[in-house]
Amino acid sequence: MITSMSNSQMKHIQQLMKKAKVRRESGLFVVEGIKMFREAPGERIEKVYVSASFLKSGDNREILEEKGFGAGSPGTEVVEDKVFRSLSDTVTPQGILCLVRQVSTPLSVMLESKGEGRAPLLMILEDLQDPGNLGTILRTGEGAGVTGVVLNKNCVDLYNPKVIRSTMGSVYRMPVLTVEDIAEILPELRRQGVWSYAAHLKGERFYDQEDFRGKTAFFIGNEGNGLTDALTGEADRLIKIPMHGEVESLNAAMAAGVLMYEAARQRRGQDILISLALH
Amino acid sequence: MITSMSNSQMKHIQQLMKKAKVRRESGLFVVEGIKMFREAPGERIEKVYVSASFLKSGDNREILEEKGFGAGSPGTEVVEDKVFRSLSDTVTPQGILCLVRQVSTPLSVMLESKGEGRAPLLMILEDLQDPGNLGTILRTGEGAGVTGVVLNKNCVDLYNPKVIRSTMGSVYRMPVLTVEDIAEILPELRRQGVWSYAAHLKGERFYDQEDFRGKTAFFIGNEGNGLTDALTGEADRLIKIPMHGEVESLNAAMAAGVLMYEAARQRRGQDILISLALH
Repeated sequence: MITSMSNSQMKHIQQLMKKAKVRRESGLFVVEGIKMFREAPGERIEKVYVSASFLKSGDNREILEEKGFGAGSPGTEVVEDKVFRSLSDTVTPQGILCLVRQVSTPLSVMLESKGEGRAPLLMILEDLQDPGNLGTILRTGEGAGVTGVVLNKNCVDLYNPKVIRSTMGSVYRMPVLTVEDIAEILPELRRQGVWSYAAHLKGERFYDQEDFRGKTAFFIGNEGNGLTDALTGEADRLIKIPMHGEVESLNAAMAAGVLMYEAARQRRGQDILISLALH
Repeated sequence: MITSMSNSQMKHIQQLMKKAKVRRESGLFVVEGIKMFREAPGERIEKVYVSASFLKSGDNREILEEKGFGAGSPGTEVVEDKVFRSLSDTVTPQGILCLVRQVSTPLSVMLESKGEGRAPLLMILEDLQDPGNLGTILRTGEGAGVTGVVLNKNCVDLYNPKVIRSTMGSVYRMPVLTVEDIAEILPELRRQGVWSYAAHLKGERFYDQEDFRGKTAFFIGNEGNGLTDALTGEADRLIKIPMHGEVESLNAAMAAGVLMYEAARQRRGQDILISLALH
């Protein structure tokens, strides 16, 4: 049993929670709570830490055993309750935390069609700063059928604990790729025939007047400044989300959500048309 | 010049920032920053507080004068910089803060048509807890052309500083009404022929298969628990936002945004049809 925060593993976990650099170098990230443990793909779990009192519940022991991390297994460490509480990032810790391996998905895989007319649908995020926005884009993106999310290095780190929490588990399932600069991936997008759209105040057409049923990528920019001129210039089309009242723009995650669900809506529409044509 | 936090006005502002009850009883709320001051409707500003160094800039003095709150006017108080910093809710205070009067809009006004085929579009929020979600719904709602937001008493207070900030000024423009219980307004909604829709996992049809061009109200529930069974039972239709992957539901503000922008999309579509018919 680990009984002190000066234990080297405890120190490592603290570093992993606080520093993007440490996460990047180790290729690991920290998730907390029962739900996040259960949803974690077993083969990506590096290590599980549970509080002493977590193990007192038979249900909890079963949850651990289901995934091959029962008490006593080499991948599981028990931590004194007091130490666990100082470690935890949450107000009411559930007594379970684990280290999960990061996975990066190559662009080529994101661009494979997922069958049944589901063309690739990518979110390309530039300089996004708010953890809640990034998490929400992953969660909403999974719901809308997005096939991959590309971030540049200036975005908030995907494995920041606040991002993780707001993804509600989508962090395990959404293919992601972090690149130095979005410009790196543009030639490949063009070669593959992906149409790119930037939500922009100067957009000439409304977002729902475009056809997102083919290979599609949406560019989403920084919360305060929007997309850089450089990346705006690379988009095939500038599109506008219409605004009533005096609203200048939507929150970045909301704008992303409206676009992703419009793509999803059109793509479902297509399914309906195809099935009508077959009858 | 106010030089101490023990000044009764400073104490009152602190109470107004922290306590919904004090805001409710006084009918006031606090906004911070230059942008929020400029956007505030002049007739609703009760008092302006500026830091001593705010007044050193000619631009700042002009901003105050534009709205009739120049230095020396009875509605403006100068506060020592150090005191202003302790008062402020932000990390880098801009040196201006003001008290604004709350305005409640009767349901009957929200239900008036805004002309040009813009039928009433209401967001009915039950037990919503997250300040960012409420603020985002107001901001997105203004953009989507929502004509009013109704909250029950169990929602987070609309005039909470975090809500205010995330509305980005929509708090001044969006008609709002707080009621003890949503049930109070249901008879009036029915009498006026408003169709109500609840986003619900048990929804039989997708949200985009319904027609939101008439008088429409969307029910949005608590982040963790969704809508109560009681309010769900009162909705004319349960609708579903389709989900790919393993996502159970969208974040409450995102679900609201997708619904509001679908309504806006349909309503623009109607405009297009009308103009086609006229040519």
